[in-house]
Amino acid sequence: MSKGFRVAIVGATGAVGQELMAVLQERKFPVTDLKLLASARSHGKKLYFCDEELTVSQAKADSFRGVDIAFFAGGAVSKELVPEAVKRGAVAIDNSSAFRLDADVPLVVPEVNPEDVEKHKGVISNPNCSTIIFVVPLNPIHRIAGVKRAVVTTMQAVSGAGKEALDELLLQTRQTLAQERIEPQVFNYQIAFNLIPHIDVFGDNGYSREEMKLVNETRKILHDPEIQITATTVRVPVLRSHSESVNIETEKALTVEEAREVLSNAPGIVVQDDPENLEYPMPLFTSGRDEVFVGRIRKDFSQEQGLNIWIAADQLRKGAATNAVQIAELLISRNLV
Amino acid sequence: MSKGFRVAIVGATGAVGQELMAVLQERKFPVTDLKLLASARSHGKKLYFCDEELTVSQAKADSFRGVDIAFFAGGAVSKELVPEAVKRGAVAIDNSSAFRLDADVPLVVPEVNPEDVEKHKGVISNPNCSTIIFVVPLNPIHRIAGVKRAVVTTMQAVSGAGKEALDELLLQTRQTLAQERIEPQVFNYQIAFNLIPHIDVFGDNGYSREEMKLVNETRKILHDPEIQITATTVRVPVLRSHSESVNIETEKALTVEEAREVLSNAPGIVVQDDPENLEYPMPLFTSGRDEVFVGRIRKDFSQEQGLNIWIAADQLRKGAATNAVQIAELLISRNLV
Repeated sequence: MSKGFRVAIVGATGAVGQELMAVLQERKFPVTDLKLLASARSHGKKLYFCDEELTVSQAKADSFRGVDIAFFAGGAVSKELVPEAVKRGAVAIDNSSAFRLDADVPLVVPEVNPEDVEKHKGVISNPNCSTIIFVVPLNPIHRIAGVKRAVVTTMQAVSGAGKEALDELLLQTRQTLAQERIEPQVFNYQIAFNLIPHIDVFGDNGYSREEMKLVNETRKILHDPEIQITATTVRVPVLRSHSESVNIETEKALTVEEAREVLSNAPGIVVQDDPENLEYPMPLFTSGRDEVFVGRIRKDFSQEQGLNIWIAADQLRKGAATNAVQIAELLISRNLV
Repeated sequence: MSKGFRVAIVGATGAVGQELMAVLQERKFPVTDLKLLASARSHGKKLYFCDEELTVSQAKADSFRGVDIAFFAGGAVSKELVPEAVKRGAVAIDNSSAFRLDADVPLVVPEVNPEDVEKHKGVISNPNCSTIIFVVPLNPIHRIAGVKRAVVTTMQAVSGAGKEALDELLLQTRQTLAQERIEPQVFNYQIAFNLIPHIDVFGDNGYSREEMKLVNETRKILHDPEIQITATTVRVPVLRSHSESVNIETEKALTVEEAREVLSNAPGIVVQDDPENLEYPMPLFTSGRDEVFVGRIRKDFSQEQGLNIWIAADQLRKGAATNAVQIAELLISRNLV
């Protein structure tokens, strides 16, 4: 019989936490004991895991006693409680941005840099959702032809901003149809029937933190500080799944056929690329799926060696929960937990 | 007293036709007589122009007798009837793609290449909506620093596909909220809460016609066949106003401040660029406006001399009707009609 693990989920009641519970069940992750942790507000809430009713407790330093693997769904709580979990012997898989660029902390996408988990010192960071979705198809192209530069425009679903954001889009949509007054709460402006080119806070250079994450996290994951990336991140009125329009410049020449082949053979990718027969990735149809969907693979005639690709993937699954659980599976398979 | 003109609108009952009527009224265009033309289906329909009830007639070759300026809102009818209008002495301002790349036909954005109207032989083409919105801010940057290459991702509102498309988004949105079955008619897939990376038909090179229009029309308008452009065009669940994420490589160095200044001083542009104070263009708030809104102006650190900008503009106004009426005003001011 395989060994089982005592698992904790911090932020269990949020969008990513709920997805973590679903993914652990679906993948039959060897859980012997599951602790659901959240903020004080959710203390006492009941949730089901594998037909068993569990009670949510408030996350505290002591919650991690006896825990083998602690998943942190994200947010400000990580900074405080990840070190507490590690201190108590747990391995923390953290979906927040708090530790991602720390030299001591591996930043892992299992299809791309699985070997990096070996160096963990208790914390492994899960990359930003847009970065994961971007780097899964970028990596096989990088391996075969060397990516010099990429220009990325993301179109990000509201659920990337949490459950409240999802509810806000639905509410504002109803209000628009009913011609009622709209008062944005989660987003700065109405998101229903609108686009907002603003995700996370802006820095002095005019880029948002979300845009800089794509640059810096990709470099770390690919171990290539030279790779040039520029990004524009946009919130769109989609419930779930992020999309990305990606322009790539490669060192070596790469035909569309070669790109399609290397992407088709790469792990975690589904190529949907027959536009004349209406086959291309769309966020509506990638929701709930674990793979990254790639299509619209075309030569970019505007530069010597370039490609355009179009990506869609569920940012709560592969962009967050699935990737985190895959990291845990990797730790188990390598006896690192 | 200024001279008045006998005007016809072909496709008066459609989304662009309606906007043409609104823009002619707003701008107090010197109309002495207005003929509203459309397909047989709309024959006999009543519409108001300047408080006067007008009856729509079926557009036929003979409809253009005695017409000075004929606006064609777009679609297949142009190919057949534009030559008939010209034959009868009218100047045709055509919003279809039928004649745009003809060497004999000027393709005009009044802020960019007004002088091109001088060479008209009866037909002046109005560029594609996404091209107009793109080229208005690209031109001043091109003049000052020389644009070598641009990578464009468009996010296009449903009304770009006509009134039926607008109705389809609203219907599908209601159906989604009511959890009813959705059967797409205008678009190939559900557009409510979705993105579709497919506008117009695909060519052998993997690009859609909409994407190639951005490349070829921009080159013609700027009189620069060397300018390198690559595009990805995406339909988004927005009612009105297209948005574009644009990455630019320039010949000469250009600071963000210089770019902001040249854009601020260029005609037809409103710079909205203070992201920290939540100021950036959004399609919801540019709807009904005649200007092209530009923001998120940033240095692109991924290349030596580059910029990222973000654009939003009403594709039915500046992207179609406003630009067409501006062309007519240009013809009048130059005594070319």
